[in-house]
Amino acid sequence: MTEFIFPLRVYIEDTDYLGMVYHANFLKYFERARSEWAEQIGLGMEWQKENEVFFAVYFAQLDFIKPGRVHQELEVVSRISEMKGASASYDQFLRLKSSPEIILCKGDIKIVCIDKNFKPRAIPKFFVQTIKG
Amino acid sequence: MTEFIFPLRVYIEDTDYLGMVYHANFLKYFERARSEWAEQIGLGMEWQKENEVFFAVYFAQLDFIKPGRVHQELEVVSRISEMKGASASYDQFLRLKSSPEIILCKGDIKIVCIDKNFKPRAIPKFFVQTIKG
Amino acid sequence: MTEFIFPLRVYIEDTDYLGMVYHANFLKYFERARSEWAEQIGLGMEWQKENEVFFAVYFAQLDFIKPGRVHQELEVVSRISEMKGASASYDQFLRLKSSPEIILCKGDIKIVCIDKNFKPRAIPKFFVQTIKG
Amino acid sequence: MTEFIFPLRVYIEDTDYLGMVYHANFLKYFERARSEWAEQIGLGMEWQKENEVFFAVYFAQLDFIKPGRVHQELEVVSRISEMKGASASYDQFLRLKSSPEIILCKGDIKIVCIDKNFKPRAIPKFFVQTIKG
Repeated sequence: MTEFIFPLRVYIEDTDYLGMVYHANFLKYFERARSEWAEQIGLGMEWQKENEVFFAVYFAQLDFIKPGRVHQELEVVSRISEMKGASASYDQFLRLKSSPEIILCKGDIKIVCIDKNFKPRAIPKFFVQTIKG
Repeated sequence: MTEFIFPLRVYIEDTDYLGMVYHANFLKYFERARSEWAEQIGLGMEWQKENEVFFAVYFAQLDFIKPGRVHQELEVVSRISEMKGASASYDQFLRLKSSPEIILCKGDIKIVCIDKNFKPRAIPKFFVQTIKG
Repeated sequence: MTEFIFPLRVYIEDTDYLGMVYHANFLKYFERARSEWAEQIGLGMEWQKENEVFFAVYFAQLDFIKPGRVHQELEVVSRISEMKGASASYDQFLRLKSSPEIILCKGDIKIVCIDKNFKPRAIPKFFVQTIKG
Repeated sequence: MTEFIFPLRVYIEDTDYLGMVYHANFLKYFERARSEWAEQIGLGMEWQKENEVFFAVYFAQLDFIKPGRVHQELEVVSRISEMKGASASYDQFLRLKSSPEIILCKGDIKIVCIDKNFKPRAIPKFFVQTIKG
């Protein structure tokens, strides 16, 4: 399985009164990385709309290890740990770009593939093959 | 024209690293107040969906006067200053609940009524009549 | 242990292009409920600042069961399942106000008590006693 | 005066139930562009903290011209139209990257320079000179 590295900067909107990244925003960062990955392998939103394939998160486990700070440059590292039927599991973590050994947050995110009526459907083979690289 | 008072509390998600409410969130507070107003007069989301009437903001002017702080109790005061054809103008301001003479933010927000294809359409007479009280 | 029920409405800001509540926002709803609970038992932000006691989320597990929809009225039900040393575990779930048997999301959220230097410190006894009711 | 072009992609978190970018998020995009500009000319958050110089938005006027859509690639174009004493005015607009003649939103954003006690202070000369290019 391949790994996808997604860079981002923390902006003021992401911080809270304690000067840290507000915890829920790490879920957003992880989602941005999954979205960007899909775009870069040609399975982005255009493809999803044409094929009436959508994805919804049905499980998330997050370990918040270190606070993020305003204007830091971060990287989300993403791998797919399992893909079976309608669902896929992502191992994702967030690290400092300048010190990649420093991990801010780890996530185990599970998504389900749905059709336009929100019914689960098998992840398209093309998607599976492309993401397995 | 009537006025609508909408109470809210600032939560951690709303603040930024300077300990203030992040400025873009005042726009959210104003929108919550307009939404709640519509719900309370029976023109809320159920009615909007049944009648295929939607609203989009096309103009906003905001004066940020005083910072908001974490866990403050605030009130949005809303009035409709003009309603004509497809558009309506809201005068809205945000004040401290405990000291209503202290204004945090003033907004002039203009919305346009659209149909399900995003085309402008006249604001329904029933809406106009109801909101004029 | 007591349970705390926190009502909220879904606003447009909370939804995404699929017409559901964006998943990360459930974490915000849970945090609002914990904050409001602290306020209502007299251990809110004023008390926290005076006593230099802050709280940070260090773990979250979320099961997304059903989508939330625009303008729904929801309730967060919160219980503290464990409180030990510097940390506390919350069992929280989100249900429809009109059909409380319908659960949208369940969360296991763990927070740590920190001082102004972000060092863990024991949760004050007064807090423990008050929250145990 | 120079102009700064900031690219971004719309993510799911930015959209609402109508399938558009939620209007308040355009204010966030404009702020990200101003922040990134400051970083790239060496006047970013490190410099601001060392020099105890902070910035707060005190006025915003926004024209929402066209809806933004999920996963679009956009660009924020920013110019400083006035800088005087403690305040600066930014002309900013948001366009489609693939069709830069299509403008989604125009903003007139005014910021004030403040010290660590939130008192207005003159924008440092070094900042003015650098930004004038």
